[in-house]
Amino acid sequence: MSTHPFDKAIALEHSDIRVGHFTGATSPDYWNMVGPFGGTTAAIALQSVLRHPDLLGTPIALTVNFAAALEAGAFDVQATAVRTNRSTQHWTVQITQAGAGGVPNMTTTATVVTAARRETWSASDMPMPEAPNPESVERLSIGPSGVAWLDRYEMRPFSGGIPAKWDESLHHSETRMWLREAQQRPLDFCSLAAMSDVFYPRVWLRRATRVPAGTVSITTYFHAGPAQLAEAGTGYLLGRAVGQQFFNGFFDQAAHLWNEKGTLLATSNQIVYYKE
Amino acid sequence: MSTHPFDKAIALEHSDIRVGHFTGATSPDYWNMVGPFGGTTAAIALQSVLRHPDLLGTPIALTVNFAAALEAGAFDVQATAVRTNRSTQHWTVQITQAGAGGVPNMTTTATVVTAARRETWSASDMPMPEAPNPESVERLSIGPSGVAWLDRYEMRPFSGGIPAKWDESLHHSETRMWLREAQQRPLDFCSLAAMSDVFYPRVWLRRATRVPAGTVSITTYFHAGPAQLAEAGTGYLLGRAVGQQFFNGFFDQAAHLWNEKGTLLATSNQIVYYKE
Repeated sequence: MSTHPFDKAIALEHSDIRVGHFTGATSPDYWNMVGPFGGTTAAIALQSVLRHPDLLGTPIALTVNFAAALEAGAFDVQATAVRTNRSTQHWTVQITQAGAGGVPNMTTTATVVTAARRETWSASDMPMPEAPNPESVERLSIGPSGVAWLDRYEMRPFSGGIPAKWDESLHHSETRMWLREAQQRPLDFCSLAAMSDVFYPRVWLRRATRVPAGTVSITTYFHAGPAQLAEAGTGYLLGRAVGQQFFNGFFDQAAHLWNEKGTLLATSNQIVYYKE
Repeated sequence: MSTHPFDKAIALEHSDIRVGHFTGATSPDYWNMVGPFGGTTAAIALQSVLRHPDLLGTPIALTVNFAAALEAGAFDVQATAVRTNRSTQHWTVQITQAGAGGVPNMTTTATVVTAARRETWSASDMPMPEAPNPESVERLSIGPSGVAWLDRYEMRPFSGGIPAKWDESLHHSETRMWLREAQQRPLDFCSLAAMSDVFYPRVWLRRATRVPAGTVSITTYFHAGPAQLAEAGTGYLLGRAVGQQFFNGFFDQAAHLWNEKGTLLATSNQIVYYKE
């Protein structure tokens, strides 16, 4: 059985240097335009915590700050449990690459909260939008874009897809789509973290023009335990993303991911740099 | 002229120990139930970055993780610029208190992104909700609650206020209210960060019952520059907060803050622990 490309991309080796220090390498399968797909970088940060021997519980919150694009090649990850309470644990993570003169190059900082959940009253105030049957929606095809990571996901937008014409006309910035791995892989926390970042920059949709844009920081909250992930399995997720405020070089976008049955598994927000 | 209580609460002294190391003390004016109001803690983390001699630009994103409640008294803040790019800067912040045996007690971690903004195309996809005139809405009065920080803000909820009866009936978790400092103070980034956290736990509104609850992590994005802050001045903000998913001990709440004229100044999300 060959390893799924996502598992290859987030594979980490625990080093002997210190507890929570891992090494890995960027994956050509998830290459974006000037660095790896941010979703895999977020997943790697989370993975370092999930692989840490002192881990308590499951992920609740993940914030990843993209300080600089990773270069193709090896990287180091350091996950540190800065505080362990009775049922929650707070983590910091840093991803670095070897820099000129042996000085490590800080590419990514992250914070993670994990917790031992207990069963409680639960409810939702964010119902899944109405949606057509996934199979009835055409799969997004970008053609030979040269952007490798796009081929890793099957995206079926039924609202707010890629603009048919890049004519600088104005549109609302919301996309709704069915989404799953192009090559089947059961959902887990790392893939959920990555899929929270699959929505292309809202400013492109809003303005029907591709200005330079890149995520600066993303925060994802997880609303699932092992049972909810298992229920989602290899099925579709319904993903929704919308821009909120576009102001002088930065906009934020809010994203929601439900499983096919309508359970909200993750809510995510990011702030994105744009030029012009 | 006496110092505004908020300025007292977030006052920091730059120490001689190292660059970016500050000392401060918790303020009884902003005491919550088992520690300081989280909004002031968030503002203190931001303030340490804004006071740092190497600061580039203005705040874009702030994530604050509440690892442990601060105890009443002195604390240390360390702000570190981990990466400075041409127009963006990435920060980590830690707030500690002296612990038993001289080991510092980690209470708070934060990450901040600052940037030198440039004027660009700007727009909003999150219009301000319709609202009555602020003066026509009754000010929230909790009575002698013993929760000091509540007296620091003038809150005028016109939708989703404090439940009239704590009868465990179910409601939607959205609140809309006019909001400003009880004692006039012109809006700045620190007060905007604090005001992003004034909304009481959505689970109380949702269930009309006060289960134990506390914010674990908050992320705020700023959509304002000095001109937008000045325009807001000492006027009201319109604040909106809504719960999204309540699941096994944690729920997230999304918040939006507009100025009186309808400009969205900040979007904020937090994940909150709740019991039962």
